[in-house]
Amino acid sequence: MNADLGSDRLLAPDKLEAELRAIGAVRYHHLHPFHKLLHAGKLTRAQVQAWALNRYYYQAMIPIKDAHALVRLPTSELRREWRRRIIDHDGDGPGKGGIERWLKLAEGVGLDRTYVQSTEGILPGTRFAVEAYVNFVRDRPILEGIASSLTEMFSPDIIADRVRGMLAGYSFITEETLAYFTPRLTQAPQDVDFALGYVKQHATTRADQEAVLAALRFKCDVLWAQLDALHFAYVEPGLIPPGAFVPEGK
Amino acid sequence: MNADLGSDRLLAPDKLEAELRAIGAVRYHHLHPFHKLLHAGKLTRAQVQAWALNRYYYQAMIPIKDAHALVRLPTSELRREWRRRIIDHDGDGPGKGGIERWLKLAEGVGLDRTYVQSTEGILPGTRFAVEAYVNFVRDRPILEGIASSLTEMFSPDIIADRVRGMLAGYSFITEETLAYFTPRLTQAPQDVDFALGYVKQHATTRADQEAVLAALRFKCDVLWAQLDALHFAYVEPGLIPPGAFVPEGK
Repeated sequence: MNADLGSDRLLAPDKLEAELRAIGAVRYHHLHPFHKLLHAGKLTRAQVQAWALNRYYYQAMIPIKDAHALVRLPTSELRREWRRRIIDHDGDGPGKGGIERWLKLAEGVGLDRTYVQSTEGILPGTRFAVEAYVNFVRDRPILEGIASSLTEMFSPDIIADRVRGMLAGYSFITEETLAYFTPRLTQAPQDVDFALGYVKQHATTRADQEAVLAALRFKCDVLWAQLDALHFAYVEPGLIPPGAFVPEGK
Repeated sequence: MNADLGSDRLLAPDKLEAELRAIGAVRYHHLHPFHKLLHAGKLTRAQVQAWALNRYYYQAMIPIKDAHALVRLPTSELRREWRRRIIDHDGDGPGKGGIERWLKLAEGVGLDRTYVQSTEGILPGTRFAVEAYVNFVRDRPILEGIASSLTEMFSPDIIADRVRGMLAGYSFITEETLAYFTPRLTQAPQDVDFALGYVKQHATTRADQEAVLAALRFKCDVLWAQLDALHFAYVEPGLIPPGAFVPEGK
């Protein structure tokens, strides 16, 4: 629990930012054992496939989540700013954008594109967590929707770590396979500049600020629960739920 | 995948029922290792607490789920039938009903009632799975909503097994603690009679029948994913996500 809960004093914007960063320090999924294994080159190709397959669903739903945010943004200026995120993921033509690059990553680790796109083999835990995120942005005030995007504050570090670790640790991973991540290193900070500025400016009551902090905790849970499901099914104890992806030779 | 997929021939109602039962035989959560441990008396009191705490959220949301179903039922007759489920869970006065009995179970295994009711310590995986169920009934046609209740076809067996196993296996469990389950043994078959009859009568196209089967698969996933999250956090590997219930002495 937040030690400041119960207080009704408004936090200075920089103090709010510090509280947001403190949440990331203890709840962001760079701390999850699955990521530690992934980045240390300790997973099998089958386990990396399971990660790519499940994470695809998250990537594929991001523009839907962002379209729900567009619905709630009141001005052209705000919608233009947010629209960039949709363009980043959907691209500006066939074969472009983040979702397409994720499909290339999935193919690069040996998965069939059509199977990945069907999302047939993803874990129920993945599906429920991702849909919780989409529904959150659909159903909550836009201040909370924007705040829930702020896990991107913590992503450049994990991406740099991941790319370095995966290239070093897995013979079946090439720079081309990981091309998804390169533009994210510049897109994420740009997105964060806007979103962090927005919540610092628009959270004008202590209740708003608490809602912003809760939204970021929620989003950390969404990311963490996806790795819990992966780790449970494919690492330890390795119990794949009925109907989910079974790697070859398993 | 169902071997009949791709066929567009309508199944006879009894064949539809057989297909529904076949789904339960391979996807219902009586097969989950967590339940096997629970019923065999192999869990610690702390692990049973984690189960009671998390399952409370499922119990508490059932009347909300059923209220969404009421919204979509077109006649007084159908709504009266379905209303019984809400009465079963909410009771007909203070201190009565299934949710109250679940709270007594949670207290019986040593949890604080207010803490349980707060749902503060539940796993994100529990929250996301339960909310996926509520949203499913809210958002889908009522035929699918009713079909998703049909996991109750399989519950009397698991309940009998659970009560017998838990009374034998745990010194801290009494018949009174497990009083939640006794009325379920008569309520569930009554509910199933109606729901199964409804889907057999109203699924009048092959597409409807496939939707009914998919709804039951979805609901099995909802139950299974809750046990995955519990097993992962509290049994093996035993990695409790940030913010979730930490048993005493852990």
